[in-house]
Amino acid sequence: MMTNEVYSQIIEVQGHLIDSLILTKMLDVIMDQQGDFEILEFLIGKRKDEYSFARINVIGHNPGHLDTLLRDLFRLGATVPETPEIEFIPAPKDMVLPENFYSTTHHPTSIYFAKEWIEVQDMMMDKQIVIDPVMKTAICKPIAEIKKGDLIIVKDKGIKIKPPERPRGSLGVFEFMSSDISSEKPSLSIIQGIADDLYKTAKNGGKIIVVAGPAVIHTRAASYLARIIELGYVNGLLSGNALAVHDIEYALYGTSLGVYLDQRMKSREPRNHIAAINEVIKAGSIKSLIKNKKLNQGILYQLITNNIPYSLAGSIRDDGPLPEVIKDMTEAQRQYKKILKNAEFVMMFATTLHSIAVGNMLPSTTKVVCVDINPAVVTKLSDRGTSQAIGIVTDIGTFLPLLVEELEKKGKPSIN
Amino acid sequence: MMTNEVYSQIIEVQGHLIDSLILTKMLDVIMDQQGDFEILEFLIGKRKDEYSFARINVIGHNPGHLDTLLRDLFRLGATVPETPEIEFIPAPKDMVLPENFYSTTHHPTSIYFAKEWIEVQDMMMDKQIVIDPVMKTAICKPIAEIKKGDLIIVKDKGIKIKPPERPRGSLGVFEFMSSDISSEKPSLSIIQGIADDLYKTAKNGGKIIVVAGPAVIHTRAASYLARIIELGYVNGLLSGNALAVHDIEYALYGTSLGVYLDQRMKSREPRNHIAAINEVIKAGSIKSLIKNKKLNQGILYQLITNNIPYSLAGSIRDDGPLPEVIKDMTEAQRQYKKILKNAEFVMMFATTLHSIAVGNMLPSTTKVVCVDINPAVVTKLSDRGTSQAIGIVTDIGTFLPLLVEELEKKGKPSIN
Amino acid sequence: MMTNEVYSQIIEVQGHLIDSLILTKMLDVIMDQQGDFEILEFLIGKRKDEYSFARINVIGHNPGHLDTLLRDLFRLGATVPETPEIEFIPAPKDMVLPENFYSTTHHPTSIYFAKEWIEVQDMMMDKQIVIDPVMKTAICKPIAEIKKGDLIIVKDKGIKIKPPERPRGSLGVFEFMSSDISSEKPSLSIIQGIADDLYKTAKNGGKIIVVAGPAVIHTRAASYLARIIELGYVNGLLSGNALAVHDIEYALYGTSLGVYLDQRMKSREPRNHIAAINEVIKAGSIKSLIKNKKLNQGILYQLITNNIPYSLAGSIRDDGPLPEVIKDMTEAQRQYKKILKNAEFVMMFATTLHSIAVGNMLPSTTKVVCVDINPAVVTKLSDRGTSQAIGIVTDIGTFLPLLVEELEKKGKPSIN
Amino acid sequence: MMTNEVYSQIIEVQGHLIDSLILTKMLDVIMDQQGDFEILEFLIGKRKDEYSFARINVIGHNPGHLDTLLRDLFRLGATVPETPEIEFIPAPKDMVLPENFYSTTHHPTSIYFAKEWIEVQDMMMDKQIVIDPVMKTAICKPIAEIKKGDLIIVKDKGIKIKPPERPRGSLGVFEFMSSDISSEKPSLSIIQGIADDLYKTAKNGGKIIVVAGPAVIHTRAASYLARIIELGYVNGLLSGNALAVHDIEYALYGTSLGVYLDQRMKSREPRNHIAAINEVIKAGSIKSLIKNKKLNQGILYQLITNNIPYSLAGSIRDDGPLPEVIKDMTEAQRQYKKILKNAEFVMMFATTLHSIAVGNMLPSTTKVVCVDINPAVVTKLSDRGTSQAIGIVTDIGTFLPLLVEELEKKGKPSIN
Repeated sequence: MMTNEVYSQIIEVQGHLIDSLILTKMLDVIMDQQGDFEILEFLIGKRKDEYSFARINVIGHNPGHLDTLLRDLFRLGATVPETPEIEFIPAPKDMVLPENFYSTTHHPTSIYFAKEWIEVQDMMMDKQIVIDPVMKTAICKPIAEIKKGDLIIVKDKGIKIKPPERPRGSLGVFEFMSSDISSEKPSLSIIQGIADDLYKTAKNGGKIIVVAGPAVIHTRAASYLARIIELGYVNGLLSGNALAVHDIEYALYGTSLGVYLDQRMKSREPRNHIAAINEVIKAGSIKSLIKNKKLNQGILYQLITNNIPYSLAGSIRDDGPLPEVIKDMTEAQRQYKKILKNAEFVMMFATTLHSIAVGNMLPSTTKVVCVDINPAVVTKLSDRGTSQAIGIVTDIGTFLPLLVEELEKKGKPSIN
Repeated sequence: MMTNEVYSQIIEVQGHLIDSLILTKMLDVIMDQQGDFEILEFLIGKRKDEYSFARINVIGHNPGHLDTLLRDLFRLGATVPETPEIEFIPAPKDMVLPENFYSTTHHPTSIYFAKEWIEVQDMMMDKQIVIDPVMKTAICKPIAEIKKGDLIIVKDKGIKIKPPERPRGSLGVFEFMSSDISSEKPSLSIIQGIADDLYKTAKNGGKIIVVAGPAVIHTRAASYLARIIELGYVNGLLSGNALAVHDIEYALYGTSLGVYLDQRMKSREPRNHIAAINEVIKAGSIKSLIKNKKLNQGILYQLITNNIPYSLAGSIRDDGPLPEVIKDMTEAQRQYKKILKNAEFVMMFATTLHSIAVGNMLPSTTKVVCVDINPAVVTKLSDRGTSQAIGIVTDIGTFLPLLVEELEKKGKPSIN
Repeated sequence: MMTNEVYSQIIEVQGHLIDSLILTKMLDVIMDQQGDFEILEFLIGKRKDEYSFARINVIGHNPGHLDTLLRDLFRLGATVPETPEIEFIPAPKDMVLPENFYSTTHHPTSIYFAKEWIEVQDMMMDKQIVIDPVMKTAICKPIAEIKKGDLIIVKDKGIKIKPPERPRGSLGVFEFMSSDISSEKPSLSIIQGIADDLYKTAKNGGKIIVVAGPAVIHTRAASYLARIIELGYVNGLLSGNALAVHDIEYALYGTSLGVYLDQRMKSREPRNHIAAINEVIKAGSIKSLIKNKKLNQGILYQLITNNIPYSLAGSIRDDGPLPEVIKDMTEAQRQYKKILKNAEFVMMFATTLHSIAVGNMLPSTTKVVCVDINPAVVTKLSDRGTSQAIGIVTDIGTFLPLLVEELEKKGKPSIN
Repeated sequence: MMTNEVYSQIIEVQGHLIDSLILTKMLDVIMDQQGDFEILEFLIGKRKDEYSFARINVIGHNPGHLDTLLRDLFRLGATVPETPEIEFIPAPKDMVLPENFYSTTHHPTSIYFAKEWIEVQDMMMDKQIVIDPVMKTAICKPIAEIKKGDLIIVKDKGIKIKPPERPRGSLGVFEFMSSDISSEKPSLSIIQGIADDLYKTAKNGGKIIVVAGPAVIHTRAASYLARIIELGYVNGLLSGNALAVHDIEYALYGTSLGVYLDQRMKSREPRNHIAAINEVIKAGSIKSLIKNKKLNQGILYQLITNNIPYSLAGSIRDDGPLPEVIKDMTEAQRQYKKILKNAEFVMMFATTLHSIAVGNMLPSTTKVVCVDINPAVVTKLSDRGTSQAIGIVTDIGTFLPLLVEELEKKGKPSIN
């Protein structure tokens, strides 16, 4: 005989339940999956700064159904009244996970172990959590970095997630845009808003990372990105071989993929990008090329002379590649993550490949601005389940000059 | 017994046959349709300013096949050695064409009548030619304007077409871009090139027409287009109801379709665009609203106070519409054509509907710049079978401020 | 001395406040505009079929601020505890609205007059409400149809709006897709879902309207749309001149805009679309062309022989146009609205212009499917503030054959 | 005193000069760069099968200018009357080229050495030529594979290029489409044409390679691509980690990136793609997973059970990756090139990254079909300076089912 008790579970949740859609999303989860619920208690925050609290009895058709409901509710921030301890199992081999491994969200996450909440470090989406029971620390790791014996969290219990709240108050550009993507927006107002936010972030010592593709060079915007770096608005750059090759090609020869950018000449120089690669290989490195006084402008020049870290990840489509390019993908991911660590603001300029890679490595609390001419790319990259990401459909070659104009008005941000 | 004589015809063609692809296109026509040919004579222009000449025997499988081949060859500029007179038949009724009516290209066209070549006026694509045998004039007319008794050219003979040659020499932006459409172009170089060409055209008294859609307002670029008008670079504007409504809405209330453009406010004013329409209708006209000192900035304000002709064509999606909007489409087409007459340079800004309409009305000799965020629109509009059209994939809200910067450097063009 | 009473107002709201995001949106309105609130009472629906109820004190900085807050809250379904009567003012002239006219949403709306709630007929977005106090009826009208003396609702009071609830329960394609637009969706599953929903709608006697553009013909999908009509799934078609011209051109000559669709021939027939127009004008109408046995297949053929209403709205880019095309835009809008009246399901196929027009005429309760190759069009058209609209980014030429395959499996829907 | 002799050079060229645009492109080169020319001799091919021949005196402003003109003319197939021997210099170090290295086109190329024309093997664009003077062989190599001492061709002399001629005769889908890209094409006719061409290629033993991205899975087209492989139309597949991961995820769990594809369920399974990776790593390889009877359908299943070679190149955005994925980019390029060797027909399905990589590796004689929903990708990939590439803007999820329908009609191609 079936009883209800077996297939129901009381959950609790606290926060800006209405305002940040948390309760709506929870009811979505239950109803979309044909589950049932009873709201046992609901205390609404009467004013904007007050949290709400809900206690809900969640009812499934069978134990598996209930488990699925609970898993999805936990990912939205629900907890159970008496928190159970997490469970973990050692990885049987390098890169092999135990059955029932827990797969992360990109939201801030804590795990309950030995009667304490431990915050998980380096949150990323769709990764695993490895606990160190002695040090009482936990870290988020991709499967590629799992070593035999790593203690992997399994199942969904003892885990508390804090989905980001929607930003309120002063109406910055993130609040204004939220998840709205469109090419019919007041372009200059948005660029001014981004400049404001960059300035504020830089002034407060926040880390700003740029992810950029070679279209920055092709559209003749290299000198504008170089200027943004020079002004002190960039604390790291992530890209691939092509951005560096064409940046150097343009600095050395005035062409990008053989096309003259500053003059209207139809002749192309098909050797130039290979010649640029050749110059770097001969010099030994981009740094040496700068030392030799051969390279004296551009994005890479500004990065290197200002000691700003960067990482160039290889790809199957590379020519060359340059000596600086990391040809092993696991190592490239490691470097990317290092540079991204604690980033507050990430700007993605006209690159799908590297932006998706970076998106997968970022916690949901980082601000993201994605600029691309292709609305599908912008939609994909700025859809991060948060209000911390905005997408702008425009030509990077007209966006960057206008952004520089705004930043020049503000000048160099001296850190507070 | 079949003889070759019946199904072959000698044609001649003169011009920059190699350089402007004319001969290649002719061989394409013959071979794509499985015809045959023999080149009887070919005199190549030895230097760049010399014309080439070819005499070709075109061979079809049967009379109908040969006719089709010849029709397509004539459209590329071929003639027959002894030019026959054109034939014409009166239109049996208003808007009814005789069988075998001739359908035009958008290239300069002459007809051979009474031993004379008569140049056809007002060339447009896919229209008909009406001859006045007494005055010895011919005019290109759309079917909508054909009246009973109009003498319509039928068949393909006695017609000479001059496809445009490719521009050479000084490398202006049109020569640079040619039919190449891409979002990965040196944006600022292209904008500078367009500014150069606009300045040159305006200085020489050439007619410049702008076709624009409401995205100009939504992207907060209205004041930039207004400034281009004020600087004297616009001799006519073609658009619809929405551009005018939102231009006035923005001038009166600071919003476009209810969205505040200069401040980052999330509240919308859903009444504003209807209120703008209401203000115009109450005043009686946009002109009166200016006279009443209510409207004192924006695109329409600049057009009206500078006495620049404009036409607003109605469409099925209009709110209102404004009193100035032409609700009858035949009349709207008439007005558009009047403003476009002898235009040298047409800029199409972020509007598919009106740009396609204008494209259909332009001869192939007019320069066209099409700016849109949607590559498919740009491809469609700048594919005019000529090198006189360039397409730019970008956000109009970043394009116009940068174009204004370039034009401001040049100042007002005083006509030579 | 300032007191709170003056600038605050208690509102009430009832419904699926959490589930349908109503309460979240209300708090958004208040906080985005820097207002304040106190939740006085909140009774949550404990189970999924129970409504929630909230009583909220809304606080503004000054009377104008409070008015703006209340206006936006009323548009989301809020009411005040003691409903005031609506106010109205006669239109001073044809097409002129009184100051403070009320501008509608596209949600079901009632007005409070003479102690009764009157439901407003023919709801559309951004229109006005005209009341007949004698008959106690109210109708939603565009400004173009306002006559002098029409009694126009002004201000925001005495109006109750019922935003649509999110569909729940059986997971149809609308629930599955909701507002998610993407080209990386399981295409066949979605097409099957649409077929299911069309079948169910048709079987229940629901009205299905198709809005379509000429790309349906160019992509060789005309016979598939014709088949959908023949199967009985279409109760009305809205389009323009081009769809009909190319449908007839294809039926008569096998070409669309001169391009052969069924054979791979490179030769074009530039006369054919004008010839098709000419045939219709000669015959007098499309109907006569069918009667004369000249036209015996295609979309228009199926519409006319099956007595299905259609409307072809003119536009500035028309060739011809055909005699059936309505050249006056106000009249065209009237016809469109007539055919759309009480539509349950609207499919928009590859046409921006007519789809936007139709979107503006539809209440939020109608189901909308928008199919276009351009993601920006799909985003714009399916963003209707409801879960009743889905957008699909695909080629109409591959979508329609696959939809027909699914509908053929179901056969003709016999109305229950 | 300046004399003309120094700055001029006589060139010769033979082929379908008019038909294949060769002469036009040569005059373009000269005039676009402000050079001058005199046509000394021109013998036109009188009939379609006869070659034309031209002898042209090319005139530059100075020796450097003339060199640039000649370089570009040589790339179009020009030669000088008395062919000089090529020059070569040993690479000073691994991956370092001598000054003046020659950079290749992707057209068939021969070099003149020891009084003989040697055909260069493995032609690719923008690479170098390494000669073996003893064996009298020459090979095209990317800079990454250049070893110290490799004899690298320098300068532009002694090199003969044969640009591809335009296909003529029977009107296959390649002739029909040529470089025309559009979403408004007769979709089904094109799909039928591709099926015809695939069948013909397969029947003649031609090598067919597919390049595909994970959108094939997300759009629920995996089983259709699997079926094409099963039918025998695929001789190699090039992709990355994601295609394989989601193919296996779908085969094991019915989801792709957690989304259920066959049922309309809103719940997602965020663990599934990591679980799929975990299953493969546990099994040791995809092959073992098949052996263990766990994987019994899908793209990888068909490839492996039919012994069809494939290569999965790693990228910075990979989860996992699978053990089969090549993490070193230089090695991945080597594998790709091996599989592509002598390919006759390459189909690119919804992947930008791998398609660009493959495009760079293909000679201009290979047929390429590129299918993507993004017109910009299609334009970039099918713009190969030949008529051997066609681009189709459509949803891969509707394209593949329709292609399978056509191929099923033809059945398995038995090689002649």
